[in-house]
Amino acid sequence: MTAEIICVGTELLLGNIVNTNAAYLAQQLAKLGMSCYYQTVVGDNRERLLEALDAAAKRSDVILLSGGLGPTQDDLTKETVAEYCGKQLVMDEESKKMIEAYFAARDLKPTENNWKQAMVPEGCKVFPNHNGTAPGIAVSARKNHFLLLPGPPEELELMFEESAVPYLREMSPSVILSQTVKTCGLSESFVEQQLRDLIDKQTNPTIATYAKTGEVHVRVTAKADTAKEANKLIKPMVKELKARFGNSIYSADEGVTLEKALADLLSSAGLTISCAESCTGGMLSATLINVPGISELYKAGFVTYSNKAKRKLLNVKKGTLQKYGAVSSQTAEEMVKGLIAETKTDVGLAVTGIAGPDGGTKEKPVGLVYVSCNVKGKVTVKECHFQGTREKIRRSSVTTALMLARICVLEYLSKEILK
Amino acid sequence: MTAEIICVGTELLLGNIVNTNAAYLAQQLAKLGMSCYYQTVVGDNRERLLEALDAAAKRSDVILLSGGLGPTQDDLTKETVAEYCGKQLVMDEESKKMIEAYFAARDLKPTENNWKQAMVPEGCKVFPNHNGTAPGIAVSARKNHFLLLPGPPEELELMFEESAVPYLREMSPSVILSQTVKTCGLSESFVEQQLRDLIDKQTNPTIATYAKTGEVHVRVTAKADTAKEANKLIKPMVKELKARFGNSIYSADEGVTLEKALADLLSSAGLTISCAESCTGGMLSATLINVPGISELYKAGFVTYSNKAKRKLLNVKKGTLQKYGAVSSQTAEEMVKGLIAETKTDVGLAVTGIAGPDGGTKEKPVGLVYVSCNVKGKVTVKECHFQGTREKIRRSSVTTALMLARICVLEYLSKEILK
Repeated sequence: MTAEIICVGTELLLGNIVNTNAAYLAQQLAKLGMSCYYQTVVGDNRERLLEALDAAAKRSDVILLSGGLGPTQDDLTKETVAEYCGKQLVMDEESKKMIEAYFAARDLKPTENNWKQAMVPEGCKVFPNHNGTAPGIAVSARKNHFLLLPGPPEELELMFEESAVPYLREMSPSVILSQTVKTCGLSESFVEQQLRDLIDKQTNPTIATYAKTGEVHVRVTAKADTAKEANKLIKPMVKELKARFGNSIYSADEGVTLEKALADLLSSAGLTISCAESCTGGMLSATLINVPGISELYKAGFVTYSNKAKRKLLNVKKGTLQKYGAVSSQTAEEMVKGLIAETKTDVGLAVTGIAGPDGGTKEKPVGLVYVSCNVKGKVTVKECHFQGTREKIRRSSVTTALMLARICVLEYLSKEILK
Repeated sequence: MTAEIICVGTELLLGNIVNTNAAYLAQQLAKLGMSCYYQTVVGDNRERLLEALDAAAKRSDVILLSGGLGPTQDDLTKETVAEYCGKQLVMDEESKKMIEAYFAARDLKPTENNWKQAMVPEGCKVFPNHNGTAPGIAVSARKNHFLLLPGPPEELELMFEESAVPYLREMSPSVILSQTVKTCGLSESFVEQQLRDLIDKQTNPTIATYAKTGEVHVRVTAKADTAKEANKLIKPMVKELKARFGNSIYSADEGVTLEKALADLLSSAGLTISCAESCTGGMLSATLINVPGISELYKAGFVTYSNKAKRKLLNVKKGTLQKYGAVSSQTAEEMVKGLIAETKTDVGLAVTGIAGPDGGTKEKPVGLVYVSCNVKGKVTVKECHFQGTREKIRRSSVTTALMLARICVLEYLSKEILK
């Protein structure tokens, strides 16, 4: 079964946005075991979209389209696909209700053109949009299946997972399953080297590495007639990976992020946590609070961007700031000690650094970051030298803080067991 | 003059990398005043590349290709384009010398397949590669001009600026320029309706709307013989947009985000700010701290996720939490009052809400969020009902808080002026 991707939007043709939807959809098709040989971008233009649809329909079974489902006049993906398939547009009552509810919740009044979004090709399957107003659509004509998805990535991705994956799974005769083993604190080339022998002789399952900020994920993918058989192929490989990478693996579950793994670890040990941040400016707390249900563990956070706030809220000594500076091992240590004194949590995490683009000196360049962790009074400070943009340095700092907390808590727990 | 873009690479088709080259090249074409109606991605495959070349050559004058110029066997862009144009490949002595120099400078020995990179179609123009080994190529056949550029972005971008821009400038007579006017707090359909008359009669400049979380951007694009003339066409339209949307416009500059616009407003008024967050958990502070140089204005932030933290750090009354709950207008008001008492800043922002997926009730469903702003003692509270994932609800809360701060500060300043 072959598929291809058509992304519709003038902003793509003008280069105003980068086509992350194409990359996302391509990854998803690969996961589903569908071969994809073409991606096309066209503008919101009937004739050119018809031409692209015709070319795609001749060479692929499934055609994924993104964009052009909005309420405005220049959004014409749905109308053009319906025309190409020879289908009429009809009002979908369920979608109409969802749009009404969406506007009511925001105290806004829908305008006449909003109802255009509730019109769908006759006989299609409607995918609900839980992050916006444009429903998705699956419509089949001749040998082709067209899936129409909204352009905004958060709408497209949620809808793809919720509705398009089950729809496409039903079409595909064989099952492709993956399991992702997630490591932190290792370099991609190190991980690859450790796996060289397995990669060289791989057939089914296959393994591949993916680098993220501070993390390397190893994906094990197997193809079989049933999910059960695929899982049977995956299991021994995952076991082997666990043997090779041990504690560097924080999860073997696709859905578990590093912050979730840390939250689970804290939760199982009955430990509470709090954060104090300078250069990350709230990003560390915000990342931890990504985890639903964290309120049991996460007690409070301080964004102490100024020296005054570090002194007043965390009791960092004036002398320390003067002698060593706000970005120093000493300040990081006092921050995390003051944090625990203030919040009385079991674990404290603090970050101070220079995210740039300004503020760097020869001795303390942009990218110098200190991360400190306090577990039941034992303080560990890590000095880091990151590179990249302000955003990248802040992200790297957050990941490093989460990794440090994980290691320090594991150490604490192993000592507790030996007691 | 029309152009289109073909990006060659299996890693693009698998979604392993995002196609930033397409966005870069599209931007460059727009700047050069060349209309681009199609982008295509194909793998390193002779037949499919020939098919893509043929489709492109029929509908566009200039075809930009990126990728597939490497030294390995699966790199076949040059060979395939030469075949399509009916040209022989010949050794380019200049390129051969550059490759020798490149390897000598790195103390490496070129391998036999490196010389493949010095082979070029007869009669072509060679673009030197100052960031790598693969030269670029411009080759013309029939009515078409094919420009072959390397895949790595740092090689492609430098070569495009140095060699492709002058090459294409000679061909193209006109310039396309855009300006983006950014609004917040309005729905896309409302904005479009307000612009209906302008959109209906648009020719040059054209206008188009783009929706972001809580924001709608309006892009004005003009085509003219010179940049000066294009700007002359854009200016009156931007003035008209300012007249229609007034204070809902936070910037008319592509590079200015909502947080940057707020920071600039605070800075020009000499006002300081602090934040207190429950459900957004630090995201609001982290967003403000995206703005380089914010340390002059941003004093401190509190993440008071638990009731205890709200009481202890922000002095929210126990009775208020018991009577109205943590997610209430009353709590939001006390949070922002306590925040200012603690930090002594001019402006305070607080957020409390239910981001889900759990924690909702019939009276207080997931998505209920209160945002409060305190400007010099005057408190405004906004009740919001958001939908979507936990992430989406938190993002919407942050955008709403930034918008509310902007409105309250503008209100305060207008009163100050009237005094």
